[in-house]
This record gives sequence, structure tokens and C-alpha cells, in this order.
Amino acid sequence: MPRNRQVLLVARPKGIPAAEDFQIAESEMPKAGPGEFIVRNLLLSVDPAQRGWASDEANYSTPLPLGSVMRALAVGVVTESANRSVAVGEHLYGWFGWQDYCAARPADILRRVDRDAAPLSAALGVLGLNGITALLALEELGSPKAGETILVSTAAGGVGSVVGQLARDRGLHTIGLTGNETKVAICRAEFGYDDALNYREAGDLAAAISSAAPKGIDIFFDNTGGWIADAVVPLMNAHGRIIQCGTASVSSWNPVPAGPRRERAVLTKRLSWNGFVIFDHLDKFAEAAERLQHLVARGALAYREEILDGIEHAPGAIAKLYHGDNLGRLLLRL
Amino acid sequence: MPRNRQVLLVARPKGIPAAEDFQIAESEMPKAGPGEFIVRNLLLSVDPAQRGWASDEANYSTPLPLGSVMRALAVGVVTESANRSVAVGEHLYGWFGWQDYCAARPADILRRVDRDAAPLSAALGVLGLNGITALLALEELGSPKAGETILVSTAAGGVGSVVGQLARDRGLHTIGLTGNETKVAICRAEFGYDDALNYREAGDLAAAISSAAPKGIDIFFDNTGGWIADAVVPLMNAHGRIIQCGTASVSSWNPVPAGPRRERAVLTKRLSWNGFVIFDHLDKFAEAAERLQHLVARGALAYREEILDGIEHAPGAIAKLYHGDNLGRLLLRL
Repeated sequence: MPRNRQVLLVARPKGIPAAEDFQIAESEMPKAGPGEFIVRNLLLSVDPAQRGWASDEANYSTPLPLGSVMRALAVGVVTESANRSVAVGEHLYGWFGWQDYCAARPADILRRVDRDAAPLSAALGVLGLNGITALLALEELGSPKAGETILVSTAAGGVGSVVGQLARDRGLHTIGLTGNETKVAICRAEFGYDDALNYREAGDLAAAISSAAPKGIDIFFDNTGGWIADAVVPLMNAHGRIIQCGTASVSSWNPVPAGPRRERAVLTKRLSWNGFVIFDHLDKFAEAAERLQHLVARGALAYREEILDGIEHAPGAIAKLYHGDNLGRLLLRL
Repeated sequence: MPRNRQVLLVARPKGIPAAEDFQIAESEMPKAGPGEFIVRNLLLSVDPAQRGWASDEANYSTPLPLGSVMRALAVGVVTESANRSVAVGEHLYGWFGWQDYCAARPADILRRVDRDAAPLSAALGVLGLNGITALLALEELGSPKAGETILVSTAAGGVGSVVGQLARDRGLHTIGLTGNETKVAICRAEFGYDDALNYREAGDLAAAISSAAPKGIDIFFDNTGGWIADAVVPLMNAHGRIIQCGTASVSSWNPVPAGPRRERAVLTKRLSWNGFVIFDHLDKFAEAAERLQHLVARGALAYREEILDGIEHAPGAIAKLYHGDNLGRLLLRL
């Protein structure tokens, strides 16, 4: 009889969750209660947002209680079902947690995955939260127009890399910020950015961005916030849009750190600064995934993955993400 | 032969423009060149935005060269015309400057004033930039919905007092912040706020606002920025809107002062934070003034004025505004 390996959150992280905040435990195999079904996870997601789910800092979702299985998205196959709407053998993308097996309900499903349309792993990245965030945030908050300039922070990441490619397709001048020279090269060669900068080595970051964006910046797709954003905001054009999609460069929000006040820039440049959280947009999920799947199928949307084999890599995986060690969408294969 | 008294900007203000930054000079009467007309100013406007026009800090308009007549809105009557579209005797609201007489062109006119529809002074306030800013910023950036809570900073001011009344008419719970007890009383009694607070005496301002807004804040109509805004932002509800219409509580933006970072609040609360500058919306000016004029005519929109007699009050008038001494829209009568 197989056992269910689970990654439990056992300590409230200080800042970025570290391996010591988790513990791998084995439990009984879950049973499908009335209306439930059992998913055997094949691929687990590692997401920057997991930091927020594990923390009790101000956030957009309730923090996970200590001792729980770590909240995570996963792709798995249904092995048993007590729900007529879900068939054994179906592949699903949903909230199945960092564990081998999950007793799930239909509300836990984000999308049913056609395993012939694209590699299964794509469902967790370019066709999952990352790609869909990129598409919807850019279209709904960015109002991109041909000839404009967009700057993307974490440009080589799962979200940023898709933003850059979609913006280039719409005729924008695209500039990527990323954290090492390898990623700079990837941004240019694989993700088609017109220009890419290593923010760690740029020296005067504002001056470097300014040279790359001689006409100023119309859209700032910001996944970092903090000191990186501080270099960008003064370069925004009038009527510019800032899409706040992450705050990866700020290590703690408790207490809220200080930075340059933005009120005057927002007023005088008539900026539009909006936060984007994909879970507000689940009604558009399937259609957006469909559109992205077409782009992937005709080779118009590149993506990168870094897949670690084995659940034992889970505890240290979020820290790896924040340290920028990975060169593609970080996943765990079981 | 009358002479033309003019208020000249003679020194670049440090922070808030002081009386010493101006000088009253007399010059020859202007002559109407081809296509021009002469306006005799009757009422001059005193606006917080004049601080920005006089300063060389980051702003939304080119700073005024030293030695120029102070940029200002005014209401006047046409005394001479070399332009067929403008008749002698017409009353106009426009960019006629802090002076007795102005040689103007049609592009300087913001609106033609029907002097029988409302008192002339209303053209500079509730039917002018103030009222129109309130109406358009609230409607276009606020998306107000009945049952929501709005907080207005500088609630008794020319813009804020109109915002409060328009929001109450739409069924919002309205809370005003203002700087003294007299204004608190005016906010409640004349402008119909559901609640009003004196931010100077509130003690723990965030706690005081929180008691007045038990359901949180959906719209923050912000004319102050700075420490007052810092008390409000953490109380914003998810999907809240911040309308940045002024930054009156920050005395200098050079260098940009520090404050609590907003990136995380914008992201996790999915805030929409937008700057509003009325000069982007001149195409909607006449229609908005018309709508406000109807409200004034049927007694549904209260407003207050404080009129100083004589151009000699001009040099100290902007500082008076920033010190919050005035109890209504500050104007100068010539």
C-alpha cells in the first residue's frame, strides 16, 4: 500500500520561506469522500506567491495554518472518483498541494488539461497562472499600443517572459530587467526583448534604463517593487501605466519599509497604478489558456522550464526562486 | 489713462510660494494685437496648483519664467476686441493672469460665462476648475457605487466639498478630513458629510478614520498625500480606488521625501491609484459646468467663498491657502 508524502508548513517564515520552515511527512492514502476524487500529482508548482501564503503578513489570502500541507498548484491524474463530473484518467490543473495524492473537489480545479495539446508541464507555466497573468494583466491594465515602450522586471521569469513576447507581438519596444548575465542573454535570444539589462550590474540603474528607453516608459510591468521600481518610476511618461504584479525585491513588509513617495509622480504624470491578482479573473482563465495554447502550438511563444525530480526538493524550492538561481519556470516532478 | 497692475513672480519659491516671491508692478495698458481682445479682470483665482506653476520641481506644466505675470485663472469682461468670435461686454473665464488687464486670445478662454445663470464668482469655483475636477475625477476614476465609503482629504475645500456632496447624492457613505474644528462643522452642516474629522486633533488618525469607516474605505479622494494618506491607505478595501488630485500636505518634492512603500498594498488590495489633472479633460468642461450649474440652481450644491478685496492681497494668498486659513474658495476681487 503506497503512503502519501506531504510537505508540511511547520514554522512561520521570516521573510522568504526557507527549507527549515517545512517538513516532509508520510501519511495514510487519502480516501475520496462523497463528491470527492483522488488526484495523483505528477508535477508540483513552485510559485513566488507561496511566500505570501506561508506568511502572516498583509496579503490577499488567508495565511496557511502551521502543520498544513503547503498550498500549491499541481498537475495530476485522477485515480479514483466519487464525483460524476470527474473521470478517472482525466488530467487536471488545480489546488492539489505539495503532496503525492490529494482528495479534491471540483472547486479545486483551475482547468482540465488536454495532455495532447501541449506538454503537461506547460499547464503549470505558460498555459497556467504565469501565462494567463501575463496576458490578462497586460491587456486589462496595460492598454498596450504599438510604438510604446514597456519595461518588465523579472523579465526572464514565468510571467515576465510571456509579457515581453506578447508586448513585442503588439509592436511595443520591449526592455527586460533581470538579475544575471545568463538571463540577459536568454531575454534577448529566446524571449525577443529589444533590450535587456542586468539590474545587479547596471551601476546607475536609472541611467542604464534611460539609455535603453530614450522615449521614456509607457508601461511598467512590475514584479519586483522596491529599489528596482524606484529607478523606473521617475522615467515613466505622462499617462503611463504601472502594473503591480509582484514585489519580489522587498524581503519583508512587516513593518512596511520606506521608499520615495509616489504621490507627486502619480499626480503630475497622471499615472495609472494597479494591482493584479490572477484569482480575480478565473472566469477568463479557460479562454486565455486557449489563446496562449494556440501561440505555443505555432511556435510563437517561447518558454523555459527547470524541473527538479523528487518531492525532497520542495522545502528549499521557494528560496531558490527568490535567489534567482533558476533559469526557467521551476517545477517538481514526482 | 489707467495703468495695468500686475503681480510678477520674482523669486523661485522654496516650497510654498510666499509674499516675498512676488512683486506688484505697474505697466502700460495692453493693446489688442491682431486676433486678440482685452479682458478687464473682475475676479482672480488663488489655486493650490499655482505653487506648482511657480516652482521648478517635477510638475505637469512648464514652470513660469521669473519676471512673468503670475499664471492664474480669472473672470473678466471684454473691453475691446480685435477678434470676431469675442464680443465687447462678454464675460469670460480663462487664463488672464494676476493682473488688471490682459491681452488674450481665444485659446486662453476656458468657458464663456452667463452672468445671469449664477453669481460671477461661482465661475471660478464650483462651476470652474474646482467643481469640474470634483465631478470628472470622481466619475472617471472613482466609479462610485451606492453603499460604498468615500474619504475625502481637504474635505471643506473647493474640490473636496463638491466631491463630498456628489458622492452623498450617489448614496455613498461620506467621510471628510479637514484641518480645524470650524471646517469640521462646515463639512457636516453645509456639505452634508456623514462624518468629518480634524486631522490635526484626531490623535491616532488611522484609528479615528477606522471608527468613522467601519466597513473600510472604497474610494480615497486624496488632495493631500503625505502623512495623512499614510493613515488612509492601510484602511482601503480590496479593489479600492485612490484618486490623486493634489499633494497639499507635502511641503517639498525636491528631493522626493520618503514614506511607507505602497507596492504591497497596491498588489494585495488590487488598488487602482490614478492621478487626475483637469487640463487633460478640457473637452468635457462645458458639459460638466452645465451639469453643476443645474445643481447650484436648484440648491443641491452648496459652496463657500472667501473674497479678498484688492490685488494687493495676491502675493500672500497662496501661502494663506496652504496654511488652511480660508473657510471657502479663495478669490481676489479687483
